[in-house]
Amino acid sequence: MAPPPEELRTTVAIVGAGPAGLALAHLLHTVGIDSIVVDNRDRETIATTHRAGILEQGSVELLADTGAVTRVHTHGHEHEGTVFRVDGVDHRIDFQGLVGASVWLYPQNEVFVDLAQTRDAAGGTVFYGVSDTSPAAFDTDRPHVDFTDADGTPRRIVCDWLVGADGSRSVCRNAIPEAERQRFSLEYPFAWFGILCEAPPSAPELIYSRSERGFALISQRSDTVQRMYFQCSPDEDASAWSDDRIFAELQARVDGPDGFELTTGPVFERTVLPFRSYVSEPMRSGRLLLAGDAAHTVPPTGAKGLNLALQDVRVLFEALRDAVLSGDESGVDGYSDRALQRVWKAQNFSYWVTSLMHRDPQAGDFETRRRAGELRGLLESDHGRAYLAEAYTGWPRESRLT
Amino acid sequence: MAPPPEELRTTVAIVGAGPAGLALAHLLHTVGIDSIVVDNRDRETIATTHRAGILEQGSVELLADTGAVTRVHTHGHEHEGTVFRVDGVDHRIDFQGLVGASVWLYPQNEVFVDLAQTRDAAGGTVFYGVSDTSPAAFDTDRPHVDFTDADGTPRRIVCDWLVGADGSRSVCRNAIPEAERQRFSLEYPFAWFGILCEAPPSAPELIYSRSERGFALISQRSDTVQRMYFQCSPDEDASAWSDDRIFAELQARVDGPDGFELTTGPVFERTVLPFRSYVSEPMRSGRLLLAGDAAHTVPPTGAKGLNLALQDVRVLFEALRDAVLSGDESGVDGYSDRALQRVWKAQNFSYWVTSLMHRDPQAGDFETRRRAGELRGLLESDHGRAYLAEAYTGWPRESRLT
Repeated sequence: MAPPPEELRTTVAIVGAGPAGLALAHLLHTVGIDSIVVDNRDRETIATTHRAGILEQGSVELLADTGAVTRVHTHGHEHEGTVFRVDGVDHRIDFQGLVGASVWLYPQNEVFVDLAQTRDAAGGTVFYGVSDTSPAAFDTDRPHVDFTDADGTPRRIVCDWLVGADGSRSVCRNAIPEAERQRFSLEYPFAWFGILCEAPPSAPELIYSRSERGFALISQRSDTVQRMYFQCSPDEDASAWSDDRIFAELQARVDGPDGFELTTGPVFERTVLPFRSYVSEPMRSGRLLLAGDAAHTVPPTGAKGLNLALQDVRVLFEALRDAVLSGDESGVDGYSDRALQRVWKAQNFSYWVTSLMHRDPQAGDFETRRRAGELRGLLESDHGRAYLAEAYTGWPRESRLT
Repeated sequence: MAPPPEELRTTVAIVGAGPAGLALAHLLHTVGIDSIVVDNRDRETIATTHRAGILEQGSVELLADTGAVTRVHTHGHEHEGTVFRVDGVDHRIDFQGLVGASVWLYPQNEVFVDLAQTRDAAGGTVFYGVSDTSPAAFDTDRPHVDFTDADGTPRRIVCDWLVGADGSRSVCRNAIPEAERQRFSLEYPFAWFGILCEAPPSAPELIYSRSERGFALISQRSDTVQRMYFQCSPDEDASAWSDDRIFAELQARVDGPDGFELTTGPVFERTVLPFRSYVSEPMRSGRLLLAGDAAHTVPPTGAKGLNLALQDVRVLFEALRDAVLSGDESGVDGYSDRALQRVWKAQNFSYWVTSLMHRDPQAGDFETRRRAGELRGLLESDHGRAYLAEAYTGWPRESRLT
C-alpha cells in the first residue's frame, strides 16, 4: 500500500499557474489570504510558450494597480487603435478617439514571468511540473487536491476553496459530475496558421485583414520578433510550409492598391491553432470554482481569451475575499452568473469578428453577402466603430442590466 | 389576328403604382420628365391594403421636401424612440438622444393615397387594374411594355427607360434573362401573425418584445386602430385563432414584472405574413431598372422594406434625370451597385434584429446563448444603442466607403 501523501493546508488551492491562477494568488495575498498553486507544466515551459498578446485596459489595471510586478508599461506597447483591412483598403479603428481607451501589446508569457516573480517576492508557494493532479471532495467544506510533485513525492493540499484555472483541458472542470454541467460549443470550418519570425514590425498597430483568400492578422511581438497568422484548414500541416510560401500567402492576403508590403524574416515557430467556441456552465460546483479557459474557450479573433480569464479572476477574488474574511458567501453564490454575463458578451464578440473577417467555406451566398454588408455598415458608421472599439478594448466592468 | 395595341409614348414607363413607382413618377415630374405608370391592382385595393407603417427620417424628407402631397406631419406620429423589451423588461432606444433622428408612424397605404393624389394634381397618367403586363425590348434603346387596361383595351407604352417597381412577384424582374441574374435568399423557420384591432394604443412607441414564447411587436396604426404581431409557425392557420386566444398569446409575450397590459379590442384583420430575405442582382438589365421589392425583400423586423424602396427611388431618380436631361448615363450605369450598398446593409439589419429578437427553433444551444449575450451587450452599451438607432432611423444617405 502506498504511503499517505504529504498533507499541506491552505485557504485557497489553485490548479493552474498561468496568468489567471497566479493573478488570483497575488490578489488574495494582497488581502492576507494564503493560497497554494500547482501546475503540471514546468516554469520554463510556461515562460516560453507563446500565446495571447493583447491586454485590455482593465487587464493592465488589474496587474499594474495591485502591486504586482509588471513590465507592461516599460516593455509593452500601447496601441491606441487597430486597423481593419478589407479587400486591401485600411479602415482604422481609433480606440482613443472613439472610446478613450487603449490596449497593450504585451505577450501572455511575459505576464506569467511578472506574476511568477510577484509570487516569489511574496514567498508564495507554487508547485510546477506536478503530475496526477486530482481535485476531490469539493462537495464538502474541506476539499482537497492530490498530486505528485516534480520530485515524485505524492502530496495533498487540503483547503477551504478550490479554484480550477487549469486551461481548456481542465482536470477541475472534468471532475465536476456530468449531471451538473451544461456544455455549449461551436466548431469552425477553419483554423489559424500562426508564425513567429525575426523581422521588424510591418506596421505600428495590428492589422485584421479580410481578403478573397481568407483572413490574416498582422500582429507584433517586439521590435525584432513578429507574430502573424492566416486562416487555414483545420488539418493544415504546418511543417509543409516553407518560409517563402508562408510569406507569399500572408502578402497575398494584405495586397491592396496602397502597395502595403509585409516585412519578412526567418520563421522560427509555425503552428496551427485550433478554433473553437466553448462554455461549460455553471462555473462552480460546491467549493470548486472555475476561471478562464477551464470554463470557456473563445476563438483567438478579437483577443478576448486572456482578458476574459483575468476578468473572471477579478470577480472571483472579490467573491473569495468576502467569503473568507467576512463569511459572506453571496459573492461565491453569484460568481458563475456574474462571470458568465461577460463570458457570453465575449463569446459573441469573438464569434462576430471571426464571422465578419473570415472566408467561411460553409456560408451560403446570402450569408456571405450579408456579412459583407454588415462589415461595410459597421466600418462606415462612427457608432459602429465605437461599438467595436468598446468591445475590443474591454467593456466597462459592471453591467448596467441586472 | 388581334388588332395592334394602342400605342402610347413616354420617357419613363413604370410598372407598379405603389409608393415607389408613384414617388419616382412624381420626382421625374419635378424636373419635367414625363412618365406613365401601370399597376395590375385597382386603386381602391392599394389604398386599403395594410403594409408597412414606419418611415425613416429620410423617407419623410423625400416625400415632404419635393412638393408631394403628404399628411405625414398632420396625420402621422413622430416617434423619438422605440422600446426593446427583453424577458419583460423595457430598454428604450432613444433615437433623438442617441443620433438626433426620429421615425414616423404613417401607414404605407396613406403614403400611396398622398402620392396618387399628387399624380392626379399634376395630370400624371396612371393605369390601375391592368392585366397581362409584359415588359420587352429593354435590350434595345426603345423598350416597351404591353398590357390590357381596365376596360379591356390592349395597349403598348413605348419608352426610353423602363422601371420595374412591381413588388416581390415582379413581372419585370422575371423578364430579365436567367443567365444575367444572381439570386440570394434566406428562408426563416417562422412567420408573423399580424392583426389589426379596434383599440386605443397600448404604449406611445413601438415595442419589440423578446420572450421565451417568441417575438411580439406591439405597433400602432392610429388613435383607434392598433397593429400587433407575434412570431408564429409559417403554416399557422390565422382563421383558427379567436380574439381571446390572440390577445392571450400577445399578452404572454409581453408579460413582465412591471405589470404591462395590452389594450384589446375587436380584431378585424388577421394575416400570417411570410418571412424571407431575398435579393436579385443586378438591379438593371439594359434599359430596365428595378426598384424596391421587385429586386429585394426583407423580413419585416426593423421596418426597412418601404424605406429601402424609397431610397432606391431616390438614387434611380438622379440616375434617370442625368440620363434624360444631360445624356449622362453614368448614374444609370452605377445605379445597381450604388443601390445595392444600402440594400445589403438593410438586409443585414433586418436579419440581425430578427435573429436577436426571435426564438429560433433551429438554433443550437450555443447560438441561442450567444445571441442573448449579443443582445445584452448591445442594449447595455451607449455605442451599441446608437449603432442600432442609426440603422433603425436610416443611415446617412451617402456611403463614406467607395
